[in-house]
Amino acid sequence: MKNIFKSGWFRALTAAMALLLITVFAVQCGKGGEEKGGTTKESAVGAPRGKESFQDVVKRRGLNEDDVLAAVKTYTPDNLKDEGVAANSGGQEGNMPTYVFPSMRMVKYIPINTRQPYAGFGYSEETYNLMKDGFIDGAEILWGDTHHPGFSETDGVYNGKWLCINDKANPRIYIVDLRDWYVKQIIQNPIFRSDHGGSFFTPNSEYIMEACQYPAPYDHKYHELTEANFKKYWRGGLTYWKFDNESGKVDLNKSFTFEFPPYTQDLSDAGKAKSYGWGFTNSFCTEMYFGGIEAGRPPFEAGCSSRDVDYLHVTNWKKAEELFKAGKIGKKVVNGMHVITIDEAVKNGLLYLIPEPKSPHGVDVSPCGKYIIVAGKLDSHAWVYDFDKIMKAIKDKNFEGKDEFGIPIIPLKAALHKSVEVGLGPLHNQFDSRDGVIYTSIYVDSRVTKWNYKSDDPEGKNSVLAYVPSHYNIGHLVSYHGDTKKPRGKYLIALNKLSIDRFNPVGPLHPQNHQLIDIESEQPKIIYDLPLPMGEPHYTAMIGRDVYEGNAMEVYPVGTDITTMSKSKYAINAGEEKTDTKGNTVEIFGTIKDGKVTPANIEVTQGQDVVIHLTNLGQSVYDHYVYEIASYDKMYAYAPGETATIKFNAEKSGVYPILLDAQNSPSKRQLVGYLTVKFDQAAEKKRVLAYTDRIKWDQEVQAFKPSAIELKNMLPGEIEFLNYGCNACHKFGEDFNGPDLLMVHKRRSKEWLKDWILHTEKHHKDPDIVALANKFKLYMPNQHVDPKDVDKLIEYMKAKSEQVIKEKAGK
Amino acid sequence: MKNIFKSGWFRALTAAMALLLITVFAVQCGKGGEEKGGTTKESAVGAPRGKESFQDVVKRRGLNEDDVLAAVKTYTPDNLKDEGVAANSGGQEGNMPTYVFPSMRMVKYIPINTRQPYAGFGYSEETYNLMKDGFIDGAEILWGDTHHPGFSETDGVYNGKWLCINDKANPRIYIVDLRDWYVKQIIQNPIFRSDHGGSFFTPNSEYIMEACQYPAPYDHKYHELTEANFKKYWRGGLTYWKFDNESGKVDLNKSFTFEFPPYTQDLSDAGKAKSYGWGFTNSFCTEMYFGGIEAGRPPFEAGCSSRDVDYLHVTNWKKAEELFKAGKIGKKVVNGMHVITIDEAVKNGLLYLIPEPKSPHGVDVSPCGKYIIVAGKLDSHAWVYDFDKIMKAIKDKNFEGKDEFGIPIIPLKAALHKSVEVGLGPLHNQFDSRDGVIYTSIYVDSRVTKWNYKSDDPEGKNSVLAYVPSHYNIGHLVSYHGDTKKPRGKYLIALNKLSIDRFNPVGPLHPQNHQLIDIESEQPKIIYDLPLPMGEPHYTAMIGRDVYEGNAMEVYPVGTDITTMSKSKYAINAGEEKTDTKGNTVEIFGTIKDGKVTPANIEVTQGQDVVIHLTNLGQSVYDHYVYEIASYDKMYAYAPGETATIKFNAEKSGVYPILLDAQNSPSKRQLVGYLTVKFDQAAEKKRVLAYTDRIKWDQEVQAFKPSAIELKNMLPGEIEFLNYGCNACHKFGEDFNGPDLLMVHKRRSKEWLKDWILHTEKHHKDPDIVALANKFKLYMPNQHVDPKDVDKLIEYMKAKSEQVIKEKAGK
Repeated sequence: MKNIFKSGWFRALTAAMALLLITVFAVQCGKGGEEKGGTTKESAVGAPRGKESFQDVVKRRGLNEDDVLAAVKTYTPDNLKDEGVAANSGGQEGNMPTYVFPSMRMVKYIPINTRQPYAGFGYSEETYNLMKDGFIDGAEILWGDTHHPGFSETDGVYNGKWLCINDKANPRIYIVDLRDWYVKQIIQNPIFRSDHGGSFFTPNSEYIMEACQYPAPYDHKYHELTEANFKKYWRGGLTYWKFDNESGKVDLNKSFTFEFPPYTQDLSDAGKAKSYGWGFTNSFCTEMYFGGIEAGRPPFEAGCSSRDVDYLHVTNWKKAEELFKAGKIGKKVVNGMHVITIDEAVKNGLLYLIPEPKSPHGVDVSPCGKYIIVAGKLDSHAWVYDFDKIMKAIKDKNFEGKDEFGIPIIPLKAALHKSVEVGLGPLHNQFDSRDGVIYTSIYVDSRVTKWNYKSDDPEGKNSVLAYVPSHYNIGHLVSYHGDTKKPRGKYLIALNKLSIDRFNPVGPLHPQNHQLIDIESEQPKIIYDLPLPMGEPHYTAMIGRDVYEGNAMEVYPVGTDITTMSKSKYAINAGEEKTDTKGNTVEIFGTIKDGKVTPANIEVTQGQDVVIHLTNLGQSVYDHYVYEIASYDKMYAYAPGETATIKFNAEKSGVYPILLDAQNSPSKRQLVGYLTVKFDQAAEKKRVLAYTDRIKWDQEVQAFKPSAIELKNMLPGEIEFLNYGCNACHKFGEDFNGPDLLMVHKRRSKEWLKDWILHTEKHHKDPDIVALANKFKLYMPNQHVDPKDVDKLIEYMKAKSEQVIKEKAGK
Repeated sequence: MKNIFKSGWFRALTAAMALLLITVFAVQCGKGGEEKGGTTKESAVGAPRGKESFQDVVKRRGLNEDDVLAAVKTYTPDNLKDEGVAANSGGQEGNMPTYVFPSMRMVKYIPINTRQPYAGFGYSEETYNLMKDGFIDGAEILWGDTHHPGFSETDGVYNGKWLCINDKANPRIYIVDLRDWYVKQIIQNPIFRSDHGGSFFTPNSEYIMEACQYPAPYDHKYHELTEANFKKYWRGGLTYWKFDNESGKVDLNKSFTFEFPPYTQDLSDAGKAKSYGWGFTNSFCTEMYFGGIEAGRPPFEAGCSSRDVDYLHVTNWKKAEELFKAGKIGKKVVNGMHVITIDEAVKNGLLYLIPEPKSPHGVDVSPCGKYIIVAGKLDSHAWVYDFDKIMKAIKDKNFEGKDEFGIPIIPLKAALHKSVEVGLGPLHNQFDSRDGVIYTSIYVDSRVTKWNYKSDDPEGKNSVLAYVPSHYNIGHLVSYHGDTKKPRGKYLIALNKLSIDRFNPVGPLHPQNHQLIDIESEQPKIIYDLPLPMGEPHYTAMIGRDVYEGNAMEVYPVGTDITTMSKSKYAINAGEEKTDTKGNTVEIFGTIKDGKVTPANIEVTQGQDVVIHLTNLGQSVYDHYVYEIASYDKMYAYAPGETATIKFNAEKSGVYPILLDAQNSPSKRQLVGYLTVKFDQAAEKKRVLAYTDRIKWDQEVQAFKPSAIELKNMLPGEIEFLNYGCNACHKFGEDFNGPDLLMVHKRRSKEWLKDWILHTEKHHKDPDIVALANKFKLYMPNQHVDPKDVDKLIEYMKAKSEQVIKEKAGK
């Protein structure tokens, strides 16, 4: 980048600007106020409507001093770069919305567990196969609840290599490669049914922590929901997924899960520096309650708030790893997962509990590793534990007993540094670069409390430093590198679920609101409101551009399978294009180059399997192309150098344009050729029957909705004709899988038609029926038509015949 | 909103600010430059790091005068509202990204033809049924290429009621209701295979224009792709969809399509004011060429650029409507669509051609309706046609002949007002509020040309007013209400496909770039760069907040089916919750209230159909709830007041948490109960076999990819065991659909096992096999195992048995 500021130019300009501003503010600033949409007064052709000065604009838009300051702190013109990138939970949408800061502009929705047509994600065989790793018990699940993004670390600071996130609704972890910001591995937790306390890296990315949320039976089998069964079969847990910082791969066989009681676990954090080797996981509903209004049981929440404290789970993963490697623990395997039983953990000193404030959410380890801070949603205090005190209690065997599963409980007093009243509904904590300074989100009070977690203030009365109001109810919050050993200060983002009146309404479901807070000065200030559509503010991780940018890839080597980042076996060079037909399969090896596709046209026969492997030979940043077959549901977006496969059964005959769209260049979507599919009687029959089956299933449990068909101005009896699937075999005006029905009401008596429809088999020996069965290689199956519908079917045959005759006459 | 500026406070503040700024700029402004991500120096506990002044910030960030001006023109703090909303094409992603201006913040991705888990779109039966209207030939198509959004009009200006958009890849039109910004109707074009020139409203929303893009046979049947067939069967066209401004409904039966030659049609615009009743559609590839590199035919583009001009299609929809209503034309019906044949159109004076610049894109009618401006991608000129001259030529029958389909051609000279050299690659035009001023996007030169289309300057040499560079290659552009009779001026947005180096990189696929341009002054200036992830800049429509806000809904009446905006027949009140079991179906009528669901727990038997109708009784703007069944792929997002249905077959047994997430309130996703599904042998067999079938199909055309299974550290022969579907019936350690295989290698000889696997039927009369078949009600089907694989299967049975025994021992 040119640094234009090294010249004298900038000095001259700013001097001029200062003069301008003086003039500007000498003029009286009249009333400002709300901007109005409205027509600008028309003026003479091409006449300028005048250039507004800084003063005019500030006045017209009604900005105050803070607004102007915030504007220049966040506005990022082209000659500047934003400082970093924030990757955010996508919640229900199952993605990772990503924006740059401080300008707060969205730059990417990373596809996670939803198909993303824009990037083609889920539309090539390669990316769809990757998604399959996240399909649970073989069922396609294409949504999620992505929750906690985390960046990989080396020595407790971000190393710019990997980004992971968990799916809370369907317990899965996704590993994103920071070279291209796409998912490379998907791991299902094979024993949980939901998760929450993930995904958090240990300080050298040795492990990714994933804690269960709502307990369920590990064996994934049915057990009746009773209080006794709940304690017997339902379990929580904490999985330490073995991670390789170099390959970015998780290894199930080297991973282990701590069995936990059926408490509802919440967030986790890994110890660092002083507390390296340990992990902290909080929990709620240690009452082990479940609701059931219909059975007279108060709802879950009510039953889960009866105890005054819940339990912080303290795990020693470093020691567990040694024992596990030595084959001493974790030999029990459930669905492929090694489980360290509660008994094993207790016996080997790997698991302890400490009372913690009621229904906690975040547990956060301070940069130096000494303090562990827990905020309890239903307690107005944040509690600060001292790691040294915890170690001492363990060493001294200073326990206040065990829970009903036999886990030793460290007395609160023995572990606590102090507790501080931070406000109603504290949720989550983040650290400043200033030593001892922490920010806690306070959701009921809608604010951030800035306080000192270190100071020697046992009652915590003098620990609060400032309050920052948020708009509105804040959930999580994040500071710049705030969960590492070296927080960077400067920025804090309040993640708010409510925005209500802050942005122009575009429907009942409002965007979420991420508020950028400047934490440089003593009293932090909100400097930007970012509406976040299609994502939820469960957690965000901010990373400096300097950390990851060196690893960024813009183009893949030619022939790359981007899901494995290695050469695809289907890659070819220019000139090697070919089509192989083997059995029922047509396999095409093609190329994309300069916006052209070889081969351009494809001709197949209905019912054939078609496999298209394309290699994008382009090697410039502009060479992003979407290959698509119009009206055929087949497409994929090829990145520069990528090889990927599109596979389908050519179940429909006809003519379909093949288009190529240039995504990152000005060229438009262009026709490149046509897919022509020759008609095949058997394949058509199969397709129509499958379609009819689908409609029938719809019918079984719900009244059939005409959908597309209602447009057709239905004739009397048409809906019944469709519902009984008659259209699978019959047309009007031509033979199809069965005989032409045009004017059948004239050819056969109504009585005969009724009898034939209701008692098909009776006629199987009638010579005319035998002749038809020979011709069509098929007897009409008995469709089990309800006798009350049979008249309607016949009425339709008449009406449709007349319509067709009329249409033909009109031609 | 409080107008704080009516007080004297603002005057005092700005005076103070002026003083501050004077001081600020008196201080020397040193060198600025790129911002660096880096640690802020740590300071003492809680000590302020100093408050930066306006001057400090401007200096630190290296902003110049233009930057500061742009910052205050766009920064929109909470006490201001943005002026309006821009709805944008989503391209490949098939959505409508929507942002507010001038702050350029994304506020919504309107779900169009993609499922959107965030809003639940496509996950309730109601929304999925709506999506079905867009499934082509019965095939589920969940992506698209959304292109041209358009707002409904009354008397040529936006009426704030409806928004429509077309899907170019799969010819569909979507109608969005501006009360809640969700799709309410989806229309397929039943004779096209792609579209482009849509969707544009006529001045009173009488019709929506949708022009075909790439010609294809109307009958949707297979025809061999030859030059002769292309002219005979392939057709372009222009559909006028009859629209009702009140109900927002399109009526197929009152709609009609102009048959066009197999030219490739492009954009359209409806005449207005003076030219009301007429429509204009341009075209390219009047060469009627198609490519085919593999057959020695140069690609499509090359063959489509041989002629110097293409044809502007001029249609008289008002007269066509009269004749159509009178039953005089359009009697030919293809797939339900009334077609006005070329012959009918020519005979009745409804269709004319005028030469237009080579390969045009946009055709735009001026606010007063007199001028029609066409820019030709492959011509550096924009051509201005005069509607009065066109009418005169028609009246005088001044034609220069006919095209080969018999359509009269109006001579260029007779219709042209002037042509203006605007730059290389002109694409699209938008109007200013200043009379005569137009902006044209110039994609090769990467700029916007501001020029005068009205002035009497036949050669066009003095018509250009200014150039505005865009970064980078601009495609479309849009001005504020710029396609209505009353453009509002003020803002222009350049829609650029390239952003490359303008934003921090987050992977090879860069966001698109929307640049806000201030057009108030004589020389327009870019004031904001908006990266647009997951969307394509095909076109944007900007609407003033004042126009639509009055119609906005925040909450639905209790019991609303939001797809029909009427009372759902499944709506119930509190206290009416019930569960009906009928046959194989369990039908639940439940409610959501204050974050609680009744019923909370659901118990069913595997294989049952489960239908859950929930009514969200909430009536505040916070009452948005997502109901989800973890790990079961079932969920839906309920808006306040909404009734919607979730339907599924309980194909998996086990225990699944049911969660409720509050989307617009601070509450977290909470457990509300459990879905417990009792095991059923027959249903389990069906599920496993279906799963195995899927795997087998994968295998047919491509090597099986282990996916989730590879995590399991495969045993020798495991992949073969899975590939042949043995797991569908066999387990180790228990009977399943077939006998337990634990230690089978000890119970049977290797030879016997081989023979049994390869020649199953031979043993069907062996007494032990008969006994097993009786027990399991099933003979093992011959899996047609390749003899070379049979040893591997046996090896696996041994290895798996040993592993299971070892695991049991470890417990």
